[in-house]
Amino acid sequence: MNTGKHLSKGSNPPTFPDNNTLRLYSMRFCPYAQRIHLVLDAKKIPYNVVYINLSEKPEWFAEKSPLGKVPALEIPDQGKGSTLVESLIIADYLDEKYPEIKLHSDDSFQKARDRIFVERFNSVISPYYRILFSTTGIPPGSLSEFVTALDVFEGELKARATAFFGGNKPNMLDYMIWPWCERADALRLAVGDKYELDKERFEHLLKWRDEMIKDEAVKKSFISAENHAKFVESRKNEAQPNYDMLVNEAKKPRLD
Amino acid sequence: MNTGKHLSKGSNPPTFPDNNTLRLYSMRFCPYAQRIHLVLDAKKIPYNVVYINLSEKPEWFAEKSPLGKVPALEIPDQGKGSTLVESLIIADYLDEKYPEIKLHSDDSFQKARDRIFVERFNSVISPYYRILFSTTGIPPGSLSEFVTALDVFEGELKARATAFFGGNKPNMLDYMIWPWCERADALRLAVGDKYELDKERFEHLLKWRDEMIKDEAVKKSFISAENHAKFVESRKNEAQPNYDMLVNEAKKPRLD
Repeated sequence: MNTGKHLSKGSNPPTFPDNNTLRLYSMRFCPYAQRIHLVLDAKKIPYNVVYINLSEKPEWFAEKSPLGKVPALEIPDQGKGSTLVESLIIADYLDEKYPEIKLHSDDSFQKARDRIFVERFNSVISPYYRILFSTTGIPPGSLSEFVTALDVFEGELKARATAFFGGNKPNMLDYMIWPWCERADALRLAVGDKYELDKERFEHLLKWRDEMIKDEAVKKSFISAENHAKFVESRKNEAQPNYDMLVNEAKKPRLD
Repeated sequence: MNTGKHLSKGSNPPTFPDNNTLRLYSMRFCPYAQRIHLVLDAKKIPYNVVYINLSEKPEWFAEKSPLGKVPALEIPDQGKGSTLVESLIIADYLDEKYPEIKLHSDDSFQKARDRIFVERFNSVISPYYRILFSTTGIPPGSLSEFVTALDVFEGELKARATAFFGGNKPNMLDYMIWPWCERADALRLAVGDKYELDKERFEHLLKWRDEMIKDEAVKKSFISAENHAKFVESRKNEAQPNYDMLVNEAKKPRLD
């Protein structure tokens, strides 16, 4: 049913089998939407995907997501038009509703601490975007802001002394910060050699990244740094971002 | 123990009874900190309060809240230095850890919907601050942005057809948005008659406000619009905000 193509203005609303399978409105390169792909895949919850062209949104999409945002998760058994938005809220909802494979810690204090780290990860995300979308070179201070923010995560992973933030497998914190870590090397492609994570300074995080890439859920939505960088270039330089650039690859295995 | 005075640079770290009572680091006029007062009071959880002078933070406070933020909640039985920050994360933690009086809905979907409304309330908060702290009159468009954002809440309350968002008593959504509603009339005092909520347009929200003011938890942290406005004036015009302006009133009943 899903070709991987992003639906645009003028498109017909998608049709779904008449069942209660969840419906995820997503965009192939959106890190916030990827959070929900990761949660659904890690929890092995079946779902249908509809990709949305965010520059030319389908008219019918306003009914699914009044502010036009992805990710939006439609939950048929809650009644017609029952949709949730906001990646962290959707992720928490799924973890509560489908507790067979739990991603949050059962310990409320540990869960709260992990959520605070997700919140603090915004201080990595902000300079990341400033650098990536700058058209006038690297904004002063942004690179050091980016790596200093990452220090907090390197320190925490070292203190936990486990392969993942979640222990011997990824938990909610791992998955919520992953999309930007997957994209980190797109920075190198965008700004050149000036950006390279110091192997000693980020010893634990770099090992963590190597482990994350082997995770089954991560593999399912994985996009290479080269392709992330290409998409960013299309967003910066073309009339419309090239949402469908991976459509023909949709059938190929994405990672060995 | 707590005089209501805000502790500053050079102060001694507060001492506490040797027990597991929660410790809330707060600021008397901070709406985010008030969220946690409301949750603790609504759930009847005992706690100690330490007020922090945010302009001249005590040296010892960095150990409690590394980014220097209030609210910070110290949880002695989690071990030394176990503190949580971020108002929404603390509120969720408390609701999970102390389930006797539940503030979130037991239904995961309804809980997620309420959390989305709390998130959307940021579109009320942003223009509110722009108006309140402007020194050059009302910024163009801000007042209409403020009331348009409030329309969403008026509409939702009308649709729920209950006195509170939580039904016949306040729930987490009611308490999380309350601090700014308590402060809404400070706008009138700051900008004059140009601001007055239309009685028909906001029929349900205005009734809701009248009901909220009677709530026992709300009464405990309530500050009048006049005092909120006075504090804002001190923040705009004086070398230091007048954090301690209500200290002498701490013993007086705050509401009839």
